[in-house]
Parts: sequence; C-alpha cells; structure tokens
Amino acid sequence: MEPRIECGILGATGMVGQHFVKFLQGHPQFALTWLGASDRSAGKKYKDAAKWHLGGVTPESVADLTVEESKPGNAPKLVFSAMDASVATEIEQAFAQAGHVVVSNSRNHRMERDVPLLVPEINADHLKLIPVQQRHRGWKGQIVTNPNCSTVVLTMGLAAMKPFGIRRVMVTTLQAISGAGYPGVPSMDINANVIPFIGGEESKMETETQKILGDFAGDHIEPLRARVSAHCNRVPVVDGHLATVSVEFEKKPTEADLMAAIEGFTGVPQQRKLASAPARPVIYMHEADRPQPRKDVERERGMAAFVGRLRPCPVLDWKFIALGHNTVRGAAGAAVLNAELMVAEGLLD
Amino acid sequence: MEPRIECGILGATGMVGQHFVKFLQGHPQFALTWLGASDRSAGKKYKDAAKWHLGGVTPESVADLTVEESKPGNAPKLVFSAMDASVATEIEQAFAQAGHVVVSNSRNHRMERDVPLLVPEINADHLKLIPVQQRHRGWKGQIVTNPNCSTVVLTMGLAAMKPFGIRRVMVTTLQAISGAGYPGVPSMDINANVIPFIGGEESKMETETQKILGDFAGDHIEPLRARVSAHCNRVPVVDGHLATVSVEFEKKPTEADLMAAIEGFTGVPQQRKLASAPARPVIYMHEADRPQPRKDVERERGMAAFVGRLRPCPVLDWKFIALGHNTVRGAAGAAVLNAELMVAEGLLD
Amino acid sequence: MEPRIECGILGATGMVGQHFVKFLQGHPQFALTWLGASDRSAGKKYKDAAKWHLGGVTPESVADLTVEESKPGNAPKLVFSAMDASVATEIEQAFAQAGHVVVSNSRNHRMERDVPLLVPEINADHLKLIPVQQRHRGWKGQIVTNPNCSTVVLTMGLAAMKPFGIRRVMVTTLQAISGAGYPGVPSMDINANVIPFIGGEESKMETETQKILGDFAGDHIEPLRARVSAHCNRVPVVDGHLATVSVEFEKKPTEADLMAAIEGFTGVPQQRKLASAPARPVIYMHEADRPQPRKDVERERGMAAFVGRLRPCPVLDWKFIALGHNTVRGAAGAAVLNAELMVAEGLLD
Amino acid sequence: MEPRIECGILGATGMVGQHFVKFLQGHPQFALTWLGASDRSAGKKYKDAAKWHLGGVTPESVADLTVEESKPGNAPKLVFSAMDASVATEIEQAFAQAGHVVVSNSRNHRMERDVPLLVPEINADHLKLIPVQQRHRGWKGQIVTNPNCSTVVLTMGLAAMKPFGIRRVMVTTLQAISGAGYPGVPSMDINANVIPFIGGEESKMETETQKILGDFAGDHIEPLRARVSAHCNRVPVVDGHLATVSVEFEKKPTEADLMAAIEGFTGVPQQRKLASAPARPVIYMHEADRPQPRKDVERERGMAAFVGRLRPCPVLDWKFIALGHNTVRGAAGAAVLNAELMVAEGLLD
Repeated sequence: MEPRIECGILGATGMVGQHFVKFLQGHPQFALTWLGASDRSAGKKYKDAAKWHLGGVTPESVADLTVEESKPGNAPKLVFSAMDASVATEIEQAFAQAGHVVVSNSRNHRMERDVPLLVPEINADHLKLIPVQQRHRGWKGQIVTNPNCSTVVLTMGLAAMKPFGIRRVMVTTLQAISGAGYPGVPSMDINANVIPFIGGEESKMETETQKILGDFAGDHIEPLRARVSAHCNRVPVVDGHLATVSVEFEKKPTEADLMAAIEGFTGVPQQRKLASAPARPVIYMHEADRPQPRKDVERERGMAAFVGRLRPCPVLDWKFIALGHNTVRGAAGAAVLNAELMVAEGLLD
Repeated sequence: MEPRIECGILGATGMVGQHFVKFLQGHPQFALTWLGASDRSAGKKYKDAAKWHLGGVTPESVADLTVEESKPGNAPKLVFSAMDASVATEIEQAFAQAGHVVVSNSRNHRMERDVPLLVPEINADHLKLIPVQQRHRGWKGQIVTNPNCSTVVLTMGLAAMKPFGIRRVMVTTLQAISGAGYPGVPSMDINANVIPFIGGEESKMETETQKILGDFAGDHIEPLRARVSAHCNRVPVVDGHLATVSVEFEKKPTEADLMAAIEGFTGVPQQRKLASAPARPVIYMHEADRPQPRKDVERERGMAAFVGRLRPCPVLDWKFIALGHNTVRGAAGAAVLNAELMVAEGLLD
Repeated sequence: MEPRIECGILGATGMVGQHFVKFLQGHPQFALTWLGASDRSAGKKYKDAAKWHLGGVTPESVADLTVEESKPGNAPKLVFSAMDASVATEIEQAFAQAGHVVVSNSRNHRMERDVPLLVPEINADHLKLIPVQQRHRGWKGQIVTNPNCSTVVLTMGLAAMKPFGIRRVMVTTLQAISGAGYPGVPSMDINANVIPFIGGEESKMETETQKILGDFAGDHIEPLRARVSAHCNRVPVVDGHLATVSVEFEKKPTEADLMAAIEGFTGVPQQRKLASAPARPVIYMHEADRPQPRKDVERERGMAAFVGRLRPCPVLDWKFIALGHNTVRGAAGAAVLNAELMVAEGLLD
Repeated sequence: MEPRIECGILGATGMVGQHFVKFLQGHPQFALTWLGASDRSAGKKYKDAAKWHLGGVTPESVADLTVEESKPGNAPKLVFSAMDASVATEIEQAFAQAGHVVVSNSRNHRMERDVPLLVPEINADHLKLIPVQQRHRGWKGQIVTNPNCSTVVLTMGLAAMKPFGIRRVMVTTLQAISGAGYPGVPSMDINANVIPFIGGEESKMETETQKILGDFAGDHIEPLRARVSAHCNRVPVVDGHLATVSVEFEKKPTEADLMAAIEGFTGVPQQRKLASAPARPVIYMHEADRPQPRKDVERERGMAAFVGRLRPCPVLDWKFIALGHNTVRGAAGAAVLNAELMVAEGLLD
C-alpha cells in the first residue's frame, strides 16, 4: 500500500469544513493533517475551535490537531477549500500562487473562464483547463472547483441524457436545510414551512449547469447551448436536495432510450475505480414514490444521484425527479472525488 | 336580516367534513343543521361519531347533532359534499335526483361534461351548465364542484394572466399534509422528508386547469388550449399548498402588464360581495421570500391566493410562486363560496 | 368609551417586541403610539427597522411609526419592555426613575426583592410591593415583571392546587422554538430532534415558581416553601410549552378535590373582567391525549392554560400535564394583562 | 469460522420485522433464512409481501425469500418474534411448545412470572428462569423477551446506579415516531406537535423497570422495590427515545460516585464479546446539551445508551437524561443481543 497523500482543509471549523473532516475519515488515499481557519481559531485545538455540529462527536483523529492560520506556509500541497465565499477568493489564489492544489467547494472561482467546474462522471476532460489556468495566472498551483450542491443533483440527473441533445430544462428544487450551513436557516423560518427563495441559487443552477455540460474548447469551456430555468425552495429536510425536472430534447428519445442511457451511465471515476466513486453514479428507482431524501440520501455513502418517475411531460418532452446528498455529493464528497481524479491524472505529482 | 338558509354536510365525520363544519361556524347566510355520514356513524351524536382532528374541540353548535344516514330524506335542500371519492358518485347523484343542490368537494363529477367546475372569481359563468345538466339528467337538483386543492392555487395564480393568452404552464407543487385527510400521510413517511408523488394529482391539475380556464360553449366547457405539466410533491407543512409556476404567453406581456393585471384582479364574488369572498382574491407579496405556507396561509381567512417572485423565465416567459390554503380555499371554503354564488344567482330559490 | 391609554414598547424590533405589537392590535384600552429600540433602528420607520417574523406582514397601524431611541424622553407613561436581558437592566431602571410604569417581560428584575413577579390570577396582591419599591429606590415610576414563559405554564397549572399545600414539584418541559426568539434555534439543531437543554431555564423555573406562589410579607415576597425540580427541553413545535408535572401535597387531596379546584379556579382578572383575561384561566381537557401544543395553543387567544391527564403518581401524589402559549400567556399577553390589572388597581393614575 | 445459526422472523413484514431484517444483515453468527407472516402474505416473495419502509430498498438477501405461514413446521430453531401484540401470544407459545427458541420483542409474555425480561448488561442471570419455564409449561422450547423500547433506555440509564439503592424514579420520555410502527402516528397529529400520551406505555415502563432491575429468586424474579413514575410523550423525531430522569437513592452517592459507576459500567455482553454488544453499553456525554436523538442515536450501531447532564435534583437526589435507539437497542438489536447471550450460555445447543 502506498503512503497516503497529506491534505488540509481551508475553513475547517465551519459546517462545510466539518463535512470534509467527516468524509475524509478513513480515506484510503488522503491523510488529513492540516486544518486552516480564521485567525480567531488559529492556535486552538480543533475540538476547542469548532463546536461539532454533525452527528456524534469530533473525530478523534483531528480533535487535538492545532488549527492554523489560512496561509500557505506549512500546509500540504493538497488543500480542500471549505471557506465562506466572503473570504475564499484571495486565500485560494494565494495558495494556488504558492503551488498548492486547491480543490474548492466555494463558489468564488467556479465560473471563471480558466477554472474547471468538475463533475468527474460528466466532464473529467475539463481538467485540460489546468495548464491554461497556470499559464494565464503564472501559478505553479491550481484551483479546481465543484458545483453548487443543487447543481450537482441536476447535472447528474441530466448527464446520461446529454447525447439526446438537451435543449431546455425546467427545474424546481426542494433543498435541505444543511445546504445553508450553520447556524443557517432559523428554525422559526422553516419549521413546518417552506421558504421559496434561496439567494443566488437560481442563477447558479442556470449558469453552472451550462458550463458543466459544456465542452472544452482549447482555452475555455463552451457552455451547453441549453436554456435552463430554476425555481429554488428550502424545505424542512436535514440532508438531500430533491429536484423536479422537465427537459426538451433535440433528438426526441423514447422512454426506452432514456432508461437505457440512465441505467448504462458510467464515467471516468467508475472506470478508474476512484476511491469515493459510487459503483453506479446514477441509480434509477422504479418505485412510484422514490427517491425520497430521508430514505435514500445516505445510500452509496451519499455519492450517487438517484433518479425516478421518468414520464412524458406535456410541456417539454420528458420529466423526472432527481435526488442527491447536498453535503456529500454536493460538497465535501464532490471535492474529494475531484482530488482523486486529479491524482489519477497525475496532477498532484 | 334574512333567515339563514339551512344546509347539510355529506361525509361530515371525515376530515374534509370537519373543515366544512369549522368553516361554516358563524356563517351569516348558511345554518348548518344536518350532518350525513356512513351507516356506522348514523344515529350517534356528532361529537361521538367523529374524533375532532382540527384545532380545539368539536364546535358546540354541532356537537350534539345526531348524525344521519347519507340519504336524501330529510336533508335540507343545500348539501355540501365532503365525501370520499369511493362513495361520492352514487350518493351525490341520488341527492341531485331528489332535488338537492349538491355543492361538492369530491373529485367524482368534476370533469363530467355537464358539471360546472367552479372558481367563482374565474368562471362564474360556467354555472350556465346547470340547466344543461338538469335537462340531460332529468334532475330537479344539481351538482356543482370545486377543483382539487392544488388546482385552485394554480388557477387563481393564473387567473389574472388569462387575457395574455396562456399557452404553456409548468408547475411544481409543495403540498401540505392536510391535503391527504386523516389519518392520511404516516409521519414515518413525511417527517423531515419529501414525498415526490401524490397519486392522481398531476393529471387532475393538468385537466382541471384547462376546464376551469375554459369557456362556456353552449352545452359544455371548451377547455383552454394550453398545455399544462405538473410535478406534485408532499412536504411536511400542515396547511398551505405552494406552487412554482412558469408560463408561456401568446401576447408576451411585460412585467408591468402582469403586475397590473394581478394587482387589479377581481371577480364576481368581490363585485357581489359574497360573504366568504376575500376583499382581493389574489394578493401579490413584494418580499423576496414570500408567500410562505406557515406565515401566510391563514391570512384573509384562508380565502385569498398569494403570489410572489414574478420574474422572467429563461425557458418559458415568466415565472412566479403561488400559495393557497388547501383545506379552505382548496376545499371547504371553495364549496361554500360556490354556494354563496349560487344563492346570488338565484339557483337555490 | 374612555380614551385609550397610550403605551410604548421597549425593544420593539425584536421578536418579543413583535409579539407585543401583534397582541396590542385592536386592544380596547391601550393605544400603541411609541416604539423604542436600539440606536441602530432609531429614526427608521418600524417596517424598515424590523423584518416582520410573525405571520402575515407588519401591522399597518405601526408600519410607518418612527422608531425612537430607548430613552425616557417623550415615551408615554406606560411602557412594555421586550428588551433583551443584556440591556434591560439599566434602561428599565432609567424609565422607572423617570416616572414610567415599566411592565417588563425581561428576566432582569424578576427575582429582585422589591419587584412583583406577577401572574394576576395567582398573586395580584404582590402589587403591594410597588410602594415598597418606589420608597426603596426613590422612583416615581415602577417596574413589574411577568415570569419566564415556561414558569407561567407551570404556575397556572399549579395555581388551583395551592390550597392543598404544594410540597414538592417535578416538572419536565417540552418547549416551543418561539421561546428562543429570532434567529433563535438553528434548524440544523432542532429539525426532527430534541435539545435537552435550555440555558438558565431550569433554575428560573425553580426559583420563579416559589416566588409567584409565595406570600406578600410586608416588604418582600416570602417564597413558597416547596421544592421544585425542572428538566427543560426544546422540541420542534412552533408555539406552546407543554409540561409534565408531578406534585406532592401536604393535604393529600383526592382526584375529586383536585378536579373541583381546577374547574372552579378563577382569579382577579376574571372578577375584574380585564380585557385580556380569558373567561376561565385554566381549562381542563378530558380527552386522553390532550392538551397538545399545535391543536390547543391558539384557543382563548392564547391566554388560558390547559391541563389534562390528572392521575395518581407512584412517586409523588398526583401527576398531570399543562400547556400554555409561550409568546402570549408566557410573554406579551402576560405583560399586557399585568398592565390591565395595574390600571384596574389605579397604579397608572 | 463456524457455520452460522439459521434463524427466522415471525411477523417479518411489519415495521418491527423490517428492523429485524435490517439488523441481521451481515450478522456474523445468525443467518436469516425464514420469514413468517400472516396468511395474507404467505406464499409471496418478501419484496412483494412487504413494502419496505426503512431507508433504501429491501435487502437483496431476503428480497426473493418466500414468506411462510406463522406455524412451527419448517422454521429454524431460533425465531425472533416481531409480531403485533394482538396475535403474538398463541403463536409464540405454539413455537415454544414445538421446541423453538422464541426471542420476542412483543409485550405479551414480558411480565409473566416464568419469562425472562432481559437486558443482558443488567440481568443476564434472569436466564435461569428458562428451566423453570420449560418445567412449568412442559415446553422443549422457550420464550425470552426484551423490554419495551422506552424501558430499555431508562433501565440502561439506571443500570450503573443500582448499587446505590434506587428508591424512587421519576421519568418523562420524549419518544420517536418510529416506536409506533407503520403506519403508526398520522403526520396530522405529530407534525410540529407533541402528543402527551402513548397508550399503555407508562405502566409498561413502571412495571418492566422493576422486573428488569429485580433479582432472580428461584422460580421468579423478585422486582426491585423502587417506585417508578412515568410520563410518556411522542415527539416529531424519527428514531431515538430521550428520557429525563430523577432518582432517589438509599446510599446517597456523590456526583463522583455516580460518574465513576457510569463510566466504569460494563456487563456480560462486553465480557463475552457478544457480536452486537457495544464496546461500552452506557456512554456519558459531557457536552451541556447532549445526548440528542438525531445527533447521537446512530452511534455505536444504535446499541449503546447515552447519558448526560447529571446534576443534583432538588426534589429527589440526582437527575440526568438518557437516550437510546428505540428500534435497535429498544427492539431488533435488543432481541438479537438476547439471542447472542443465549448462544453463549448454551441455550441453543
């Protein structure tokens, strides 16, 4: 067995940071040895700097690690960024400048022309942007990003259908409260209620989806020329974003065409047997009322997307539902899978 | 003050029946004097026949009324039907045959060619079907219906926009648990979860919407030639169905056109000052995150629809959200408003 | 009809302040004309200074009132205090010093020796402390307080039983999220969960209960010599604190004794017909599974306590459950009832 | 590795049965090969006979097993009973009569004089009742039971304290909805609500606790002579019963005495290293607001009890909170651990 690759987390004390800590427990390839956070936390033990908000208690392997300032210095080459968007831009750039491989969950660099926005099953080849990015910016390091948590669910639901020519997509989300971090959504706002608004989410879904499903074009990604419209809602569910999706296709596939595409769908992570890759990235459920967040979100370690209820749409062509784990496949797990892909591609050598 | 008109409830012991009982408390025009239910309940006092599932306790005015069998006999002329679909068809027809005015919340007759499916603010003129119905069926009485609870929300949201030529409608609902009656949805299925399926609901929304927004054509309603596609979901909310809606129009209205139409919208119930009519049937909320079920559903006694977040839709033309009280405006209140309209039109004379 | 007495709210923009605003709407005796808040809000219109967190929208009667600084100056004589404990002490004292009648919901002065801690049905005579307070402190004005929201529920549940000699009380609460204000409890902590801890709540329940049920003794209240032990829990309920209570009595009452006491219980507010007094302050429910927060909390405008399930306790003597509306009878409504009592007692003349 | 022992489940299609199916997946010692249910299900494949209500889908290992009638016939010697109380008495007796070892989660035989009511960490020696039972009843087989789900939590919380002489116990439970099975609690009753009543639960907790903590006395269990009083409540939590507990002791332990007892507590399952035994059966959490159901219930595979907030009780001596997984340690896992103990004791030879 090869020695594990050391890695760190920027923004380790926040809720997204905790999800990274949790997801990396027992990882066969990455050893979490460095935790960066704000000056306020630096110098404290992790267990003292961060009240643990997830299930159970702070994992023992990190409880006594000393939190460091978010500066390149002695951080390992591979750092995951769980930083809040308000501070991520400059710190991530500083790390990339200093030669670090920044695998970021923050939204700050996602839509930049020379930054890959990866879903490894869909667009592993977008990593070809890395040399472009390094050349443009004069960096030894690099920044790669994963999508917004709701975008992942939509794009994995659509991934198998791309060959049929996606022309128009209508999506309505029912998003879990964990997507808003901690303290996040006040219980007074969401208990037995729905909040039909999530700031910035709809435009993120609309533009990120086009980039993810787009094509590498030398020095940038040519976005998919599909029109995407999103309605985003918060619902009182702990984990798991559900989306209702209607799609119009150029090539008018039949139900059998679509089912065959979904059930046969696979990607680079499966072919390369990446450590966090689910056996099948998209699982179709034939039960009339599934997938459901609470009942399905933890399956496959939260790394697969679940699709169901494929049926004709009277307005566009076909409609279906999709579910994914927003803090795993939509955040920490997504970034770790990106890093695994990058290791497989030699980008960490 | 005129003497009040006596009325009864068919299916009085079920949850919808209880909503009728509650809504009719203190009604200025209708006096609830008769409660019909299954043979199992007949002969018992209402308070003994029905465990009260709504807030508080069984209203005193009906607690000691003796429940009767669901047969025409000594029922008052006006009866509201809260019966389960499994039994409503024959009983409602028997009452209409016997000369009763059956104002039904059941789905059984909604889509029949000679039965009005009323939303009084939208299609009060569909009552012109009554003579057709009576002639066809040889009835002295009549059956009128109100829509499914989710359809009401959608159609009231669309009502003001009809003049712009509604061509295509995509709707996703987030529906309250009270819509499923009692015992209804098991808590194990919906606690901290979403159920992305409600049996029969999507096709009801698609077809009822076309009929409600359609035009009286002599002996039937010519449905609106719009394509409607619905995704229906159950969410852990007590009362209030929320819908996200995208619409394509023939006449390409501007935002100002639509806002003027919504804010100026009114209907026959408002003009006739019907007792249960809200001052304004559709209320636009300018807050970025409203309407919300728990915070808005009880306003206006549950009789108005609330619309918000009107904005351009990248796929169709415009998108917005709509909210309505499913057990009031979507059931008991809807039927009572229908009866008020019928009184005003002289149909109970 | 007499002219209404002008009143103001200190801390008007917070969630408790909003509950005061709501409860005072349409009050027959008090006219809300003054809203005080922090410097940050002062000078703004109320609707701009405070995002309205309760149902519906900011009431029109106050929406355009200009928020003032929390200084005596031009405030009316009667001010309700909804201030956060972190700032209430000095400001309330400044108002009392300046001659204002401060009717406070804050905890800061509750346990002070010369400050009445009122539940008008129980200890209206504790107002006799007012001259003591004014003499001690050299105030023209005065401060009176109402209990913590969970204490009100317990003491109203116990009130009718005081004649039997309360010796020991074990109470476990299931408290609503609204008791924690806004933003209050993060949804990530309480969704589908219970938090078995509320900071400071247990000792408040233990000591306040003794004072409320105690006796006026010349210059102070001699606390009830009962031992009280509280376990406090937060549950995912919007409004309504439920308590399970076991009691040991000196005089070993029978079930009939207790039922007669509960059902016959009344107090000064009922005798004086105070505007916000419920017809009966304590309502016993005979259903096996009631009272319940969501189903009963809004009855009687939230001003009554509901008791049920009286039965023998194998450890102490009797056990029962009690429910009250924490933001109404446990906060805004409690303070308003206190003020009504004070008006009736001539303390505002 | 020894061959696994075949086992079956009586009542396999209900929700408790499904919990058994789930818990037995991958069990190192027991192979689930037989599924019994009502005549209605017999002859069908398990996946067709039972809609799977837990997370994910019906486990593959049983999906295609044919459900059998609940008759001894070809069932394996070891059968777990997940039957509803309405049918368990006769069927369990028929199996025991026929030589089966019936390890039951049903309440029917728990309080019978010659039936062990086991919590292996507490009263493994109660198995000495088995020969008594077999002699009395003329059975080759036997019935052993595990406690009601809320009793397990209480008794495991108390177990370490038994040496200090438990004299009086006050307990209030906050119980999860999964404890009521499926369909169980209607969402209309529990959404954003608390139900302060669970039929029969309080007396079960009071009497079962005395038996479990009692002593084997030749031909019966001499119950612990402690007085126990329970208040039982249902709360909108999926899994995990929480209890607030106050205790009076004969030997007046100090806090240090109790903490040492709790943290040093262990039992026969730990000593014998039974397959489902948690490393430590009772885990004390030092955080001020823990344990909590949603955050802690899945730890230790749901087999440990979690205790916290030990502090003086003004009414009795000490108070604390306890949490356990009601469908694992309070049902399926409890029974499986009982069976493991019986194997270790040679009762299945």
